[in-house]
Amino acid sequence: MYTHQYLEAFTARLFEQMGCPPSDAKVVAELLVKAELRGLSSHGMMRVKDYYLLVEAGRINVTPKVRIIHETPSTATVDGDGALGPVAAKRSMEIAIEKARNVGTGWVATKGSNHFGIAGYYSMMALEHDMVGISMTNANPLVAPTYSTSKLLGTNPIAVAIPTLNQPAFVADFATTPIARGKLAIMGKKGEKLDFGFVQDKHGNPSIEPDILLEGGAILPLGGSADHASHKGYCMGSLVDIFSAVFSGANFGPFVPPQVAYLPLLEQSVGDGLGHFFGAMRIDAFRPAEDFKGKMDQWIETFRNAKGIEGQPPVMIPGDPERLFEERITKEGIKLIAPVIKDLAEIAEKLNVPFRME
Amino acid sequence: MYTHQYLEAFTARLFEQMGCPPSDAKVVAELLVKAELRGLSSHGMMRVKDYYLLVEAGRINVTPKVRIIHETPSTATVDGDGALGPVAAKRSMEIAIEKARNVGTGWVATKGSNHFGIAGYYSMMALEHDMVGISMTNANPLVAPTYSTSKLLGTNPIAVAIPTLNQPAFVADFATTPIARGKLAIMGKKGEKLDFGFVQDKHGNPSIEPDILLEGGAILPLGGSADHASHKGYCMGSLVDIFSAVFSGANFGPFVPPQVAYLPLLEQSVGDGLGHFFGAMRIDAFRPAEDFKGKMDQWIETFRNAKGIEGQPPVMIPGDPERLFEERITKEGIKLIAPVIKDLAEIAEKLNVPFRME
Repeated sequence: MYTHQYLEAFTARLFEQMGCPPSDAKVVAELLVKAELRGLSSHGMMRVKDYYLLVEAGRINVTPKVRIIHETPSTATVDGDGALGPVAAKRSMEIAIEKARNVGTGWVATKGSNHFGIAGYYSMMALEHDMVGISMTNANPLVAPTYSTSKLLGTNPIAVAIPTLNQPAFVADFATTPIARGKLAIMGKKGEKLDFGFVQDKHGNPSIEPDILLEGGAILPLGGSADHASHKGYCMGSLVDIFSAVFSGANFGPFVPPQVAYLPLLEQSVGDGLGHFFGAMRIDAFRPAEDFKGKMDQWIETFRNAKGIEGQPPVMIPGDPERLFEERITKEGIKLIAPVIKDLAEIAEKLNVPFRME
Repeated sequence: MYTHQYLEAFTARLFEQMGCPPSDAKVVAELLVKAELRGLSSHGMMRVKDYYLLVEAGRINVTPKVRIIHETPSTATVDGDGALGPVAAKRSMEIAIEKARNVGTGWVATKGSNHFGIAGYYSMMALEHDMVGISMTNANPLVAPTYSTSKLLGTNPIAVAIPTLNQPAFVADFATTPIARGKLAIMGKKGEKLDFGFVQDKHGNPSIEPDILLEGGAILPLGGSADHASHKGYCMGSLVDIFSAVFSGANFGPFVPPQVAYLPLLEQSVGDGLGHFFGAMRIDAFRPAEDFKGKMDQWIETFRNAKGIEGQPPVMIPGDPERLFEERITKEGIKLIAPVIKDLAEIAEKLNVPFRME
């Protein structure tokens, strides 16, 4: 077991040794450890190796000049200058919050960035300012539009955090697909089969094989099949892609650059790097903050008191599972799986950073 | 067959006779006929009777003072004053557009409103201003959250319209459920059965009965079942509800007032009327408009050229089906079904408006 303080300090040292300024290294470390705390380990410490190899390959700029290249009172377009995703993303969200402070809301489209980790981290930055926070990102193409076999969209997550009075904050953070790639990989290794409605084969036939992506298959949009309205999941994934990349000038759809060093860069580029989109909305730009937060509490209480179904888990409010996990793990400590510990030890040795293996 | 001009003029006369100012009557008529043109007849002329009976019952204010009650440079909260939904909604979207002209983006939360028809109508108002338009609304509770039997959410649609250069505009307009109530009613009348993944019975068991809502059942969120990630559809429906009602001060979730006169008003109210939320974003607030629109064309061409699946319809861009329908029906004319014609004739007679039955 590691404390989050230990892992944060260790991870920050690693990124400093890769050449990042200490303040940037701290952002990346905090983001990756936060993913572990919230039970989203597929975006946590196992990403250190991916980020490291991209840095090694010269595909990430460790000393970027993240800057505004276009703006209005309520908007900005940010060039991430090839930064590590969390560095470009956190700065972008700060700009959105600053704009919201001035004119009620702030909206930032970011290009020239990379994999930014858990979307919820950025949306939750707004909460302490009594603002609603929104964040989204495009991602490597794994998802086929309804009626297609072409992989054109990423799992393209959206996160929205909403302040409350006495209830815990409402934090929705979800991919626009019914399943994540990480889960498919784990099921494949275990030899498990899927239900229908998650993936299709290279001809567009329904499939139950978790490894089907390796054979030209694709993840389906949320909804799962055309007759179960997967076009709505396709719409959502498309909106995230357009907001993240067409607003900012990043690569969209199939042109998003691979976020792992073992895949070569694509031949065709239609923009700069990967894209994100952020929003911050002052709640008192709509009604007095106490009124808003009181009503949010009432909303949450209403939904939490919804009648449950026998034999099923209780009704949850978006953000409940991650928050409960975080409360427990913050006390208990973070347990990493052996392959991740091994990777971290190797990188630590190369970068001359002490690491305690467990 | 009716021309849309005929139906618009007729419908406007009806609402004038109900006491609406001519400009408001025109808005309602245009909205309802636009739904017919776009192939969304469940939100078209069949709603005239619902609106009429609500007006008759004194549950709609035909001479409302729709006004801003709170604002910042980029936001406004609008009180619809009990107006017909389209009247409050169109004015709110105009305010969002005006704010966007001034500071880049404009965001309006509206309370004290009623059923607003097709969401896409308002988002598309932004297109001619080279803005992205967003609209959403909450609605009568028919949808149960994941793991619940309580009907707490409406079908809560979201619409987003995005400007293009030479391609037709991208217009996503979708409910956050896999099926609409109207479709269930039609299948029920025909004696058809559903597939699993659309509705559940009063105990929360999967059901294939389209009439199950009449027996305490509920529509499922997009995704369809807990193991197919219906919690993501639940998140989306919740966000629409919160943006529409908690931002504005309207009734949320199970407290949304019924939009048909044969259902009594609810005993408990937690706000004013039904709520909507609107956004307008100047595309040149992020990058030069021509750049944005050129990239949108490229995005659309990329997706339109996606590889299809044998035996299935071609890949579509959001907005394609409605646009193609509108092009055809604008030429051919609007065909109404007999029960709708009968209802219109009866209302026309009561209100002393000439109507040509076909």
